Amino acid sequence: MKKIILASKSKDRSELFTRLNIPFETLKTQINEKDYKNHYSDPIELVKELAKLKALKAKEILKSKEKGVIIIAADTIVELNGKIIGKARNEEEAFHTLKNLTNRSHNLITGIAISEINDSKVIVDYDMTNVTFLYLSDDEIWEYIKTEEWKGRAGCYSIRDRASLFIKEIRGSPSNVIGLPMEKIFRILKSEFNVSLLDY
Amino acid sequence: MKKIILASKSKDRSELFTRLNIPFETLKTQINEKDYKNHYSDPIELVKELAKLKALKAKEILKSKEKGVIIIAADTIVELNGKIIGKARNEEEAFHTLKNLTNRSHNLITGIAISEINDSKVIVDYDMTNVTFLYLSDDEIWEYIKTEEWKGRAGCYSIRDRASLFIKEIRGSPSNVIGLPMEKIFRILKSEFNVSLLDY
Repeated sequence: MKKIILASKSKDRSELFTRLNIPFETLKTQINEKDYKNHYSDPIELVKELAKLKALKAKEILKSKEKGVIIIAADTIVELNGKIIGKARNEEEAFHTLKNLTNRSHNLITGIAISEINDSKVIVDYDMTNVTFLYLSDDEIWEYIKTEEWKGRAGCYSIRDRASLFIKEIRGSPSNVIGLPMEKIFRILKSEFNVSLLDY
Repeated sequence: MKKIILASKSKDRSELFTRLNIPFETLKTQINEKDYKNHYSDPIELVKELAKLKALKAKEILKSKEKGVIIIAADTIVELNGKIIGKARNEEEAFHTLKNLTNRSHNLITGIAISEINDSKVIVDYDMTNVTFLYLSDDEIWEYIKTEEWKGRAGCYSIRDRASLFIKEIRGSPSNVIGLPMEKIFRILKSEFNVSLLDY
């Protein structure tokens, strides 16, 4: 059974694996995302590039001769009308972001990169889920901000927590909205790495 | 702050509320669902009726003079090509159900009934989410059945657990797939009962 390393410190991503009872380890990769955000205007190209860089960085950190280690890296952004929306730095920014998301649809885009530690092949892909919020009053947005769920999250919300109250509809993979398109990862691991997550 | 009673013993439904940090109590209502399943051929009418009956039963059990108690009841079924698919009684039935769901779309329908204990008004509604599974081989279905996630669940799967690996796309409310359309409940509580779940 190949060891799985999730090159991410996101609590949301870890929980997706934890719930499946799949053993894994996490690894923090320091990528200066801002440098790249200025170079890529296409959101899909950006998240794919960042996911790839994180996977390569993880390989470099591990420098392991160990065989059979699978590295999974990901990067998630919110896209609204072609504009990339990242994480908010403070409550005012979070309010501004949520105000923009209310009563309309946006896209949640996650880039993924999967690689085996002792193999140069890196599979890079992405998944996109469309999310529609219901209308929220300014007071409701502020009430939500007080829960602090916006912190560290692309688009300032988490679909599994209080924001589930605002999500009218999604179209696409639900796990992708949490930060990892699990169905896509399952398929890539099976076809490209001969790994079945059902075996764990 | 009105007390919330969830007239359901479903672990999945409870978790939806727990994650929101909303205090609530659960209550088991014994309804002989089979009696009704034979009388309602329309899935939507069936889940609405069952949710209403559960809410009324909860009121009867509580017999409380206490003011400000909100009762939320729900019933979930899976509908595939107009046919209602319930819970499986054994592994063979679970295999048969999952085999039917693979490589196509089905609907997850939840009926909800909301009422205040000392008020005769009962708001009954439903929500429907379309779920698309990827193709699974017979071996993969059996591997999934071994996880026992199928037990006690309409459609024999849970979107949050290993079945997240099979779910290609959903269209509609993600919490509805888990057993409670949270966005709809949020809106009904606000408009009909003057209760904001954001206040809890």
